[in-house]
Amino acid sequence: MKFTCSQGALARALNTVSKAVSIRTTIPILKGILLTVKDNELTMTASDLDLSIETKLDVQSVEDGSAVVNSKLFSEIIRKLPNAVVKMEEEDGKMEITCLGSNFSIISLPADEFPAIGMVNRLNKIEIKKDILKDLIKKTTFAASIDEKKGILVGCLLKFYENKLEMAALDGFRLAVANAEAGTEEERSVVIPARILIEIQKILMESSEEEDISLVLDNKKAEIITKETRIVSRLLEGEFIKYNDIIPKTYKTRCIVNREEMLSGIERASLLAKEGKNNLIRLDVSGSRIVITSRSEEGNSKEIISTECEGEDLIIGFNSKYVSDVLKAVNDEEVVLEMSSPVSPCLIKPLEGESYVYLVLPVRISVN
Amino acid sequence: MKFTCSQGALARALNTVSKAVSIRTTIPILKGILLTVKDNELTMTASDLDLSIETKLDVQSVEDGSAVVNSKLFSEIIRKLPNAVVKMEEEDGKMEITCLGSNFSIISLPADEFPAIGMVNRLNKIEIKKDILKDLIKKTTFAASIDEKKGILVGCLLKFYENKLEMAALDGFRLAVANAEAGTEEERSVVIPARILIEIQKILMESSEEEDISLVLDNKKAEIITKETRIVSRLLEGEFIKYNDIIPKTYKTRCIVNREEMLSGIERASLLAKEGKNNLIRLDVSGSRIVITSRSEEGNSKEIISTECEGEDLIIGFNSKYVSDVLKAVNDEEVVLEMSSPVSPCLIKPLEGESYVYLVLPVRISVN
Repeated sequence: MKFTCSQGALARALNTVSKAVSIRTTIPILKGILLTVKDNELTMTASDLDLSIETKLDVQSVEDGSAVVNSKLFSEIIRKLPNAVVKMEEEDGKMEITCLGSNFSIISLPADEFPAIGMVNRLNKIEIKKDILKDLIKKTTFAASIDEKKGILVGCLLKFYENKLEMAALDGFRLAVANAEAGTEEERSVVIPARILIEIQKILMESSEEEDISLVLDNKKAEIITKETRIVSRLLEGEFIKYNDIIPKTYKTRCIVNREEMLSGIERASLLAKEGKNNLIRLDVSGSRIVITSRSEEGNSKEIISTECEGEDLIIGFNSKYVSDVLKAVNDEEVVLEMSSPVSPCLIKPLEGESYVYLVLPVRISVN
Repeated sequence: MKFTCSQGALARALNTVSKAVSIRTTIPILKGILLTVKDNELTMTASDLDLSIETKLDVQSVEDGSAVVNSKLFSEIIRKLPNAVVKMEEEDGKMEITCLGSNFSIISLPADEFPAIGMVNRLNKIEIKKDILKDLIKKTTFAASIDEKKGILVGCLLKFYENKLEMAALDGFRLAVANAEAGTEEERSVVIPARILIEIQKILMESSEEEDISLVLDNKKAEIITKETRIVSRLLEGEFIKYNDIIPKTYKTRCIVNREEMLSGIERASLLAKEGKNNLIRLDVSGSRIVITSRSEEGNSKEIISTECEGEDLIIGFNSKYVSDVLKAVNDEEVVLEMSSPVSPCLIKPLEGESYVYLVLPVRISVN
């Protein structure tokens, strides 16, 4: 293998592909990046077996071939090189990297030991706008469980129906459901680990290009294809929780609040909501205001939020994190809170439309 | 105590003063900040007994008084408040903080339990420009030892003589000595812990104002006075190492290198200089170039640095960190390296003048 390319292009592509490199693996080859040069194109691949990323860039190839190099060392070397032409040459288990007055020779491993990333049958491509997918990931993944013992709850449902994509995540205390347009009439549901969707979101955010991306699904894998990169994620097996029935259709108290004002108030109240580790804040809804209070050994706090409220007065407790998380995930200027009693779930949603709904269970409080 | 002031001014002053708050103390009062209001002026004080910081700001006082509040909680509350007028009122062990719709009540402790910061006799003030003190701290403190068991070596010497301030730090492997103008004819030497000087540098960097600052010294303490803030540091006891005799006056090899080019080359070489934990790099000086090489189990590197060299060819080894540290600390476009043999110290200094000199011991290498 022998080729030249610009340091900048190489560094950018490495930044993308290295997101799939296993950090704590004991299998040396999985700490590596597979480089394959063919017909003036370099393909870089990394995989932690759950997530695989493959990205392509144009190079000037002198001799086609492939090899694996340590991801961390190779990335650090490329990042620290000057912005000039980099010459790469692999032979006999050694990769030579030359750029102006710098020369490195690092160990390379045989390409055939690298796990195959696998192809997904591309018959049924689903087209979706990049910004839409990014937005759905942002609005749902934070509600998934981060406890690997929770099985399917560490995943995020992707449900395609009637030219729409609905995404949903829940952890037993809250549920986030978002939907948007997607180009398919097929009805399909898959569950992708939330942590992988968050990596995918980072990759999508790094390229500023407006572009449509494609999604391809089979029974074991989901593949996301952008112009230069393809990302393959394993699917979680098992049935996702039926969440539609747990979303209340009625309410007794409905408040419209300014999102940023509510978020700031909750974040300040949470400074004194450390008791019992559940970040308890108390909302006192009455008339045209919500009073948020919290207390700890160090003192107590009170925040008055102006609101348009209809329905019954209510006192209800929450884990402050479960409310602030959703207020950070959405962009709306105003949001709606719908509640029925101190022990019934609270809905948080946009002022209009059905594109998003967030459900959070209250924390029982002693009203005194 | 009762006063009002702007959230912004309070947050800025807290950022300064909280640098002296003990993080790991078991004495609750030392986790606090002392607030004292008198005649429309708020004084905030923090101390970890080694370092004390006191800063003043204008407020509208209604009732003079003083109290201590927990630094972390109070800082977080103030930082998260909106940029508006903050009302503070202390009574019966409770500090009430009100700003627009937010209200906090946190525990306060009696002011008389707070340790006195102590006054330094201000008869002999030494005037020095802020930028000069910042620069001297940056060029020397990194060479001090960070091992508290090393006694005086964790300190930095400040030596006043002939209207100059000379600062020096050394850790047994390297020595940094810098000097600049200072307004005193007095001859005095004190040793201040390097970690405290680094905190002082941060405080000086945060205010963009060009200003002269004053230094006052007694036998136990050094006091640094800026417009709003005074910083009192304990002095280290004991005699500082006589370093003048260990600085070589002659050399056999002298090279002029571009500082940034040399720094980049060393940083890249250090990626493969992990053997034996001493970050060993090898410099091969001959003719008009320095070749930097390094090797580890993962591979090896070679960097060619162009230079103007005079004198004998030389092969010498260094801990790469000890060379890159100094190249980061100075701003010169070019620096001079003076060496005599593979086992004699190497000097690094500016192209002209005597304002700075850095000495680093080589690492013995097997030349083959």
